[in-house]
Amino acid sequence: MSKKILTALCLTGLLLHAEETRPKNIILFIGDGMGIAQVTAGKIAKGTLEMERCPVAGLASTWSADHLTTDSAAAATALATGTKTDNGMLSLNPEGQRLKTVLEIAEDQKKSTGLVCNCAVTHATPAGFATHVPSRQQYVEIARQLADSDVDVLFGGGLAYFSPSNAPSCLPQLQNKMPLATTAEEFYALGTPEKAAALLYPEHPPHVAERTVSLKELTQKAIEILVQDEDGFFLMVEGSQIDWAGHKNDAANIISEVIDFDDAVGVGLDFAEKNGRTLVIITADHETGGFAVIDGTLAEKTVSQTGFIHKKHTASMVPVFAEGPASSRFSGIMDNTDIGKTMIELIQTSE
Amino acid sequence: MSKKILTALCLTGLLLHAEETRPKNIILFIGDGMGIAQVTAGKIAKGTLEMERCPVAGLASTWSADHLTTDSAAAATALATGTKTDNGMLSLNPEGQRLKTVLEIAEDQKKSTGLVCNCAVTHATPAGFATHVPSRQQYVEIARQLADSDVDVLFGGGLAYFSPSNAPSCLPQLQNKMPLATTAEEFYALGTPEKAAALLYPEHPPHVAERTVSLKELTQKAIEILVQDEDGFFLMVEGSQIDWAGHKNDAANIISEVIDFDDAVGVGLDFAEKNGRTLVIITADHETGGFAVIDGTLAEKTVSQTGFIHKKHTASMVPVFAEGPASSRFSGIMDNTDIGKTMIELIQTSE
Repeated sequence: MSKKILTALCLTGLLLHAEETRPKNIILFIGDGMGIAQVTAGKIAKGTLEMERCPVAGLASTWSADHLTTDSAAAATALATGTKTDNGMLSLNPEGQRLKTVLEIAEDQKKSTGLVCNCAVTHATPAGFATHVPSRQQYVEIARQLADSDVDVLFGGGLAYFSPSNAPSCLPQLQNKMPLATTAEEFYALGTPEKAAALLYPEHPPHVAERTVSLKELTQKAIEILVQDEDGFFLMVEGSQIDWAGHKNDAANIISEVIDFDDAVGVGLDFAEKNGRTLVIITADHETGGFAVIDGTLAEKTVSQTGFIHKKHTASMVPVFAEGPASSRFSGIMDNTDIGKTMIELIQTSE
Repeated sequence: MSKKILTALCLTGLLLHAEETRPKNIILFIGDGMGIAQVTAGKIAKGTLEMERCPVAGLASTWSADHLTTDSAAAATALATGTKTDNGMLSLNPEGQRLKTVLEIAEDQKKSTGLVCNCAVTHATPAGFATHVPSRQQYVEIARQLADSDVDVLFGGGLAYFSPSNAPSCLPQLQNKMPLATTAEEFYALGTPEKAAALLYPEHPPHVAERTVSLKELTQKAIEILVQDEDGFFLMVEGSQIDWAGHKNDAANIISEVIDFDDAVGVGLDFAEKNGRTLVIITADHETGGFAVIDGTLAEKTVSQTGFIHKKHTASMVPVFAEGPASSRFSGIMDNTDIGKTMIELIQTSE
C-alpha cells in the first residue's frame, strides 16, 4: 500500500472521529411520561418503532433535587440545563438562580432554535428550555418570557396565555418577530420563513385523533425552517400527551400518543440520516402510571390487558435513544442531567 | 510521518477492530424478573451499580412464541438458542424439535462451560442452557440431562433432583466427572479443579441473607475454574430470586436480590476488564410484578414507597448492558432471540 493511500486512510479515520464528536444540529425528542412499558406498548401496536432505528440506547435516572419522583418541570430543567432543581421550578436552581439552557446556549452560538409540542407551549417541558420561573403554573409570565426570547420556531397550543384578559398581551411582540398561525390553514400556508409561531389552540391541543396538525407535520415544518440557518439549530420536540394518558390510566391513548410521537421521531431521523451532521436524542422526562402491558397478541398488534400502579409519576429510569454524531455519548446508564450537560458541551463546541 | 508508522497505525486499527468482534469468553448474567424499575430500585439503594460500568446498553423484547408475556423457560430458550418457543418449554421449538444452545455450541468449540445460579440448577433459566424438555417441571429429567451434559461448572441448589427417591440417582454419573460440594465448607475447599459441581441445597437456596455462599463467590470460583481452559469459556450466571421477590410483591427483597446479583456482575466485569477478551452481557428474562419505586430518599439510599400491578410477569422490555469485545452488538432495541443469535454467532467465530 502506498504512503499516500495510508495517509488518506489515517486522515479519513481522524476526520470521521472529529466529525463524530461535533454535531452541527441537535434534535431532542421528549416523550412526556414515556417509560419502557409505554415504548413496549407502542412497539406491540405499531410493529416496529422509528426509534428502533437508533443504534445507541441508554437509561436515564430522573430524580429531581427534592423528590425521588420528578415532575415535568424539574425534569425539563435537568434536560435543558444539566442541573437538578426542585419539582415545579423551571430553569432556576433550588435557590432561584437562573440556569442557562441548551437552547439559549445554541442561540449564543448563532444557531436557530425551536420548540414543538402538542400541549400549550407554556407547559413545563417546552417552557423549561426558554423560560425561568419559580413555578410552572405561571403560564402568563412564561408566555411573556417566550415572546421575549430568541426562539425561532414555537409550535403548539396556548394562544390564550399570550393574550390574557387580565394582563397585557404579548402577542404583538411575538408577531413583530415572526408570522403567527392560529389555525391549521394558516399553518399549512406558512411557507418557510426564517422564524414562525403556530399557536393552534387557546390552551392544550386535543387528543391525537382530533388534532388538526400532527406532531409529525409540526416537526417537519420546524426542521424545514431551522435548517435554513447555516450556523445550525437546536430543536426540542415533545410528545406531551403520553403523560396525560398515563395520568388517566388510559392504555389505548398511551399507545396512540406513543405512535404519534414516534411518527415525529421518524421525521427527525430521516432528516438526520440525510443531513449527516445532526444528533438526534430521544428520551422521556419520567414514567407515568407505573404502567405495563400484561397480555395481547403480537401478530394482530393488539394489547388486550394492561395494568397501572397509580395515576402519578414513578421513579423508574427512562429510555434514551440516539443517532448521529456523538450519539455514543448517550449509551449506558446516565442521569437526566448528563443528557443536558452533554448537549450543552456539544453545542458549545459545535462548528 | 514515515510509511512504517502509518502502516503500524493502520494495522493496529484493523487488529483492534478484529479483536473487537471476536471475544474468546462470554459471561451472560441474567437477572430473573429484573425490569427497569428493579434496576432503578437497586441503584437507589446501592448508590452506583456495577452494571453502570458497561458502556453499552439496550432494551430487549421478551415475548414468547405463544404469549406476549413470557415465562422463564421460553425466555431462557430465546437467550440460549436464539429461537422463540412456547411458555414452559426448554430448548425445544414449539413443535418439540431440539434446539442447540449457545452453551452446547461453546462445547463444540472445545470451550469450557458453566451454569451458576441461586436457585435449583434444574430450574428453568439454568436448565434452558443445557437441557431439552417439553415441560420445565420435569426436574428429575432435567437433572439427568444435566448430569449427562458436558457442563464443566454447575453451581446452585437442587441436589434432591439428582438423587430422587422415586427414580435412579444420577449423582454417581456427575461425581464420576467432577468433585461435588454439597456444603459451604466443601465449596470453599474445592480449589481449582478442571470441573466442579456445587449443589448446596436439596432444593432452592434460601433468601440472600441466609445463603451460605454468595452469588459473587460462586461466580468468582466459576471463573477461576473456567479460565484454565485455553480455548475459552461460556458462563451463565443467574440472579434467580429477584423474580421470586417480584412474585411476592416484596420490594425489600427485590432490592437485596438486585444488589446481590449486581455484586456478582462486578466480579464478571473485573475479570473482563483484566482479561480483555471477554464479552459480558447483563440482561433479564422478563419483568415481574409491574413494579415501580414511587418515593424514597436518594441521599439516604432508602426506598419508602413502591407499587406493583400484580404478582405475575409483564411484557415490558428488559434492560441489556454489555462490555468487552463485540459489546456494541447489544446496543439499541433488540429481541431476546437476537441476544441468543449474536452470542451463538460470536461463539462460532471465536478463536
